[in-house]
Amino acid sequence: MKPPGVQDAFEARRRIRPHVHKTPLARSNYFDNAVGARILFKCENLQKTGSFKARGATNAVFGLSEDEAARGVIAHSSGNHGQALAYAARRRGIPSAVVMPAAAVESKRSAVREYGGRVVDCAATVSARQSAAAELVKETGAEFVHPYDDPRVIVGQATCALELLEQAGELDAIVVPIGGGGLASGTCVAVEAAGSRARIIGAEPSGADDAKESLEAGRLLPCDAPDTIADGLRTPLSDLTWQFISSRVDRILTADDRETVQAMKIMLQRMKMLVEPSAAVALAAVLGNARLFAGKKVGIVLSGGNADICGLPWTELDTTPGAD
Amino acid sequence: MKPPGVQDAFEARRRIRPHVHKTPLARSNYFDNAVGARILFKCENLQKTGSFKARGATNAVFGLSEDEAARGVIAHSSGNHGQALAYAARRRGIPSAVVMPAAAVESKRSAVREYGGRVVDCAATVSARQSAAAELVKETGAEFVHPYDDPRVIVGQATCALELLEQAGELDAIVVPIGGGGLASGTCVAVEAAGSRARIIGAEPSGADDAKESLEAGRLLPCDAPDTIADGLRTPLSDLTWQFISSRVDRILTADDRETVQAMKIMLQRMKMLVEPSAAVALAAVLGNARLFAGKKVGIVLSGGNADICGLPWTELDTTPGAD
Repeated sequence: MKPPGVQDAFEARRRIRPHVHKTPLARSNYFDNAVGARILFKCENLQKTGSFKARGATNAVFGLSEDEAARGVIAHSSGNHGQALAYAARRRGIPSAVVMPAAAVESKRSAVREYGGRVVDCAATVSARQSAAAELVKETGAEFVHPYDDPRVIVGQATCALELLEQAGELDAIVVPIGGGGLASGTCVAVEAAGSRARIIGAEPSGADDAKESLEAGRLLPCDAPDTIADGLRTPLSDLTWQFISSRVDRILTADDRETVQAMKIMLQRMKMLVEPSAAVALAAVLGNARLFAGKKVGIVLSGGNADICGLPWTELDTTPGAD
Repeated sequence: MKPPGVQDAFEARRRIRPHVHKTPLARSNYFDNAVGARILFKCENLQKTGSFKARGATNAVFGLSEDEAARGVIAHSSGNHGQALAYAARRRGIPSAVVMPAAAVESKRSAVREYGGRVVDCAATVSARQSAAAELVKETGAEFVHPYDDPRVIVGQATCALELLEQAGELDAIVVPIGGGGLASGTCVAVEAAGSRARIIGAEPSGADDAKESLEAGRLLPCDAPDTIADGLRTPLSDLTWQFISSRVDRILTADDRETVQAMKIMLQRMKMLVEPSAAVALAAVLGNARLFAGKKVGIVLSGGNADICGLPWTELDTTPGAD
């Protein structure tokens, strides 16, 4: 697959602008002081559908020809990409189907349905969902949109860091969570497109640090037995995203689940803002490696806010209420 | 006590401006659609110290003469007013003490200490905390600042609705939670000061609806055995706040605790914003009485965001993730 380029990112931005939010930047004295840096949060938790995934999905859907679009779009995802694709399809007035394990929690199924998407059940294995999606594509002629292994999606995600750099001015570093690598790859495209010298830092859960291991080994390693509450970051890189990450990402930091939930909790208590574990990993990685960022101006992409607040181990932690 | 007037509110605004946030307005398609109205949220959960109480406390502290201020300030509060007074005192560089039941949770004590306040223990009765505070006043000559039965505090709180009306333009209604009535009284002052025709609607937990009962009875009734998770709204009105509420508040709506937690949860899931139960009561009351607001432009004061996320019955509820 041909890696997308700088012009594609600008084109994506024009294409998706009517359909997604230009999300705000946020900051807080608390985090600036905790890290000893100027920290700017790009609030993709406030994005349409609750995550940055709306960008890539919208770019893919609105890039289709009329004929292609009329046949609809398909994803397999039990998470944010499924919602995002259903949202984008509804905006364009075309059908969408999302293949999901039959065991997926009802709230995720209803989220897709709420955006007008059809939920198609499959068994809970990678091959089952791939064959279910392939069958649907064959049946309907719909366009399959992968959550990250797709140049259209990657340049859609690039618009996030493009905006961040416009809003913040030049940055010393941009920190993004890495799951399949779509957001990180898009950030690589955006940094080049903006002519920025910002270092690109990845963040992974220590229980799913395949990108870190790969970067250190110099070759793409599989994501074996991921074990983390950051459900968006359990996926492996693809060859395409590995091309970006291996060549442009400066380093990858990790945070364990305890640090991640703690970061979510501090964010809630200090900034009154909900981020999902996959987003909090990036904040936790910065808090846990403060010395790397001392005195720097750092953008952190808060990638999403679709957290299951009932299911998290909040009570193991304690911090102080307040705000600044 | 002489009720504060319109000029006092403008003076308070000038006085506190350097020390508190002009908090943003927020809105969401979800809530507009749910109510069938234009809903504007005044985000005092993003205020310094995490609640509107920073306004009243700052106005009281910065209105003291140099001599008065030097002797410090005292409150009894296990909640937001204590933090707010400690914050304001630190801004002015003067000592503060907050009388708190010895049984208060450590997070509330450390919140006061974090803002530089001294925590003074007392027994868990109203008379114990009053006598502990009175003793401290006698000992130190410090100024006692009541959380709501104080004209300086009320006009400080008035600055919240003054800002709201400036930011939103004219409103059909302003909805505020009522505990001791300081925020509601301040809102009455602000509506008059701004020359607004907005109706002032109170919101109370159904387990602590003394203001509603009083308004309907036409006389101030006590707040007997309050039973609600909205810990900021368990306090009785004072003669002073009753003067405002009885003459200027249009009506008082109620929400039960289940509706309140549900409103908190929807707010978290849709707007990714944390509000405390005492703030969510106002939103819950609007959601539960949508027909009253149909087609109107309504400001809801989200009074604070200092929620104990560990302790709430989240799991009894279910809603759908996403954002708009």
